[in-house]
Amino acid sequence: MCLGAYELGRLLSRAPGGAGSLLIRGGLVVTMNPRREIMSADIYVEDGRIAEIPSRHTAADLVIDATGQLVLPGLIQTHVHLCQTLFRGSADDLDVVEWLRQRIWPLEQVHDFTSVYDSARLGIVELLRGGTTTALTIETVRHTEAVFMALAETGLRAVTGKAMMDRLEVATEMIGETTEESLRESLALAKEYHQSSGGRLGYAFCPRGPRNCTEELWDSVIAAAMELGTIVHTHAAENFLQSQRLKTDGGTDIRYLHGLGATAGRLVVAHAVWVDEEEIALLADSGTAVAHCPSANMKLASGFAPVPEMRDRGVIVGLGADGAPCNNTLDAFHEMRMAALIHKPRLGAQVMSAQEVLEMATIDGARSLGLELEIGSLEAGKRADIILLNREGSHLWPQSNVDPIVQVVYQHRASDVSTVLVDGRVLLADGELTELDADEIHARAEESARRVFARVAASGALR
Amino acid sequence: MCLGAYELGRLLSRAPGGAGSLLIRGGLVVTMNPRREIMSADIYVEDGRIAEIPSRHTAADLVIDATGQLVLPGLIQTHVHLCQTLFRGSADDLDVVEWLRQRIWPLEQVHDFTSVYDSARLGIVELLRGGTTTALTIETVRHTEAVFMALAETGLRAVTGKAMMDRLEVATEMIGETTEESLRESLALAKEYHQSSGGRLGYAFCPRGPRNCTEELWDSVIAAAMELGTIVHTHAAENFLQSQRLKTDGGTDIRYLHGLGATAGRLVVAHAVWVDEEEIALLADSGTAVAHCPSANMKLASGFAPVPEMRDRGVIVGLGADGAPCNNTLDAFHEMRMAALIHKPRLGAQVMSAQEVLEMATIDGARSLGLELEIGSLEAGKRADIILLNREGSHLWPQSNVDPIVQVVYQHRASDVSTVLVDGRVLLADGELTELDADEIHARAEESARRVFARVAASGALR
Repeated sequence: MCLGAYELGRLLSRAPGGAGSLLIRGGLVVTMNPRREIMSADIYVEDGRIAEIPSRHTAADLVIDATGQLVLPGLIQTHVHLCQTLFRGSADDLDVVEWLRQRIWPLEQVHDFTSVYDSARLGIVELLRGGTTTALTIETVRHTEAVFMALAETGLRAVTGKAMMDRLEVATEMIGETTEESLRESLALAKEYHQSSGGRLGYAFCPRGPRNCTEELWDSVIAAAMELGTIVHTHAAENFLQSQRLKTDGGTDIRYLHGLGATAGRLVVAHAVWVDEEEIALLADSGTAVAHCPSANMKLASGFAPVPEMRDRGVIVGLGADGAPCNNTLDAFHEMRMAALIHKPRLGAQVMSAQEVLEMATIDGARSLGLELEIGSLEAGKRADIILLNREGSHLWPQSNVDPIVQVVYQHRASDVSTVLVDGRVLLADGELTELDADEIHARAEESARRVFARVAASGALR
Repeated sequence: MCLGAYELGRLLSRAPGGAGSLLIRGGLVVTMNPRREIMSADIYVEDGRIAEIPSRHTAADLVIDATGQLVLPGLIQTHVHLCQTLFRGSADDLDVVEWLRQRIWPLEQVHDFTSVYDSARLGIVELLRGGTTTALTIETVRHTEAVFMALAETGLRAVTGKAMMDRLEVATEMIGETTEESLRESLALAKEYHQSSGGRLGYAFCPRGPRNCTEELWDSVIAAAMELGTIVHTHAAENFLQSQRLKTDGGTDIRYLHGLGATAGRLVVAHAVWVDEEEIALLADSGTAVAHCPSANMKLASGFAPVPEMRDRGVIVGLGADGAPCNNTLDAFHEMRMAALIHKPRLGAQVMSAQEVLEMATIDGARSLGLELEIGSLEAGKRADIILLNREGSHLWPQSNVDPIVQVVYQHRASDVSTVLVDGRVLLADGELTELDADEIHARAEESARRVFARVAASGALR
């Protein structure tokens, strides 16, 4: 049966996890496999996994026509805050310290279950429509069940956790919690949601930053993460002044985390802007992954992370949009283009080739999450997280003799994403969401945003 | 009569210059007028010019429904090479010196009339679809008539000129010309095309750079530009090594141009990355405009231009994508986002606000071209160069209490552009070109690209 992609999506999406067989026919496939092959090939998917590529199958339960399109592994973002999507456009022109103090803490503090849910759904539809199929996210201190609910319903792959903040200071006390509460709630969430939705959702412990948690909490988190086999996801070395303050307080961020034993497990640190050579070696040797967030690092005036140096030394570096209020999008194409461009003035035009950047957004994102055997490339046996890019736009010509990876990184934009599969489930087809109603999600997000802003205005906390 | 925007476009476009009356109804208008007003207002257009805003007219020959959309002045780019669009994706990971020597000189040298025409048309459709209504461009040494032909046919507003290169060196000799030829051809083009197409097209003399022309040619160009009242458009202070070399050769770029008398007329210099405080003062005091090309400056590893410092000192700074091979798009939204982000790490999160960046892409672009009484804002009496942005995408929510200018600069993308008018002529409606066949333009560009690349391969010049 060969249907139009949209009808196909509606049909397929009735079978969660993409049961049945599916053929993606006629596309130019950027595999990101170990040989980085690019081939005109069909992909045969069975029960949510890639069964054969190139495939000799000529039929399947459903066929997607990818003629004239690029076929890529779904993009992976390793640092996102879904709960912040509602605050987009309401926190501009502030450095990270003021941005947190004047906007993010007061706003996160007045979130309710519904507003977190609506915020997550808005972020998720933006991610899916822009070709991101997997996100590692940190949510706020409360209501993280709402995010898991949104994730379970929508089909995005994610590793998520609640922010942990038990070290109360002037700025953070409004959103903080006790050590015991923080740990209890995190463990309950991990128990409920780790490896849920058929393995599509995972839990990550998220101490918000080295300075936002007590050592006692860090110790417990590290032990729990080891025991449960989960990621620990935190912020580190984002801002120059922050990183200087920590120097008087037990060493720089990375050394401090290493001293705690956090680097012994599977650790993902967002930013790593202010790291020296020794810290880069620590990150590399411990297998700690860095989430590079170029737009957010610039918008919050944090700086330029030494990504080429980190990659050269063997650090696993993924890409992330961070939260909507410091970006202001959740667009992996923006982050790829930024990552490719911003390091060249300092180190030369050869650094951060398109190939390297696409590795960060795919297979290195997967490695960051310990999911490199499951996602991050198009290979037989892997989960069918696949995106198709339309190549019709004027910004994509000429096409002969042009490296499609150069096109993906420098030229393509989120609006070129035509089709998105997660676990073989068609979530976007011909540019249309198959299961979700974007208009309804936008309207509910708007309503929740109004409620949250009214509440924060009444509280007087927003300056 | 109220038609769907697409039918309307087809209808209106039959009257070049947008004869008749037109009402843009129900949009949120970002005027960029001197008070920077943003208003829910209708715009009444008559014979290609804005007649009334806000307008009390309720009818017109044609009505465009802008409900739910942002209405903005058409975006202006002050540094573009239309003739290079065919080379997109074929010149990556090179600094500007090698990029010119290994790619651009050999490729421009083998251009023929048709390939220049096809390259320009490809660039023009990308610009129009992305909301750019005016471009200041430098073309190659030969076949600039082909660019004017493409511009005349397509409806983009442009100030264009042939590159002048009479100082032959090892790298540039393949593309160079004699002083006399250069001047003769430039004058002939100026005579033919300056103020043509009802004033929509203008001529600019384009000595390619301080070092690409003899002083004799510079002297003649400056005199001719003064006499004809045209712009002089050149590159300056782009690359550190280039700028150092010039130090042994008559001062830095800006001082050299000033010494020649070039700053006495209407001068636009692209890049100005390597300028010191004294040169910034020279630029400001002489009314010289700078075209800031953030993506190109990063991709070619040129550096970060001191744009906030230049603007503080009163330099007029516009924005440009430069050529497709060093970007790789001609997307004003990319350049706005880049300009807003890249200067913050050095100078703080407050610099380059969205408001300032949109000024660069609109009214300051107009001032760069001496066209600030004609374009660059939505005010009665100005030409009806107007764009509409769709606000439906997930990346544009929430919308209440969000500054639409923040949305334009940080969130909107080229694909949100729904409608484009130049001189009141509807060139894009509901995202579709009304007069041009994009598929045909892409196919012809592809054909010309193949021919040019075959020719350059045969010549052995491309490494």
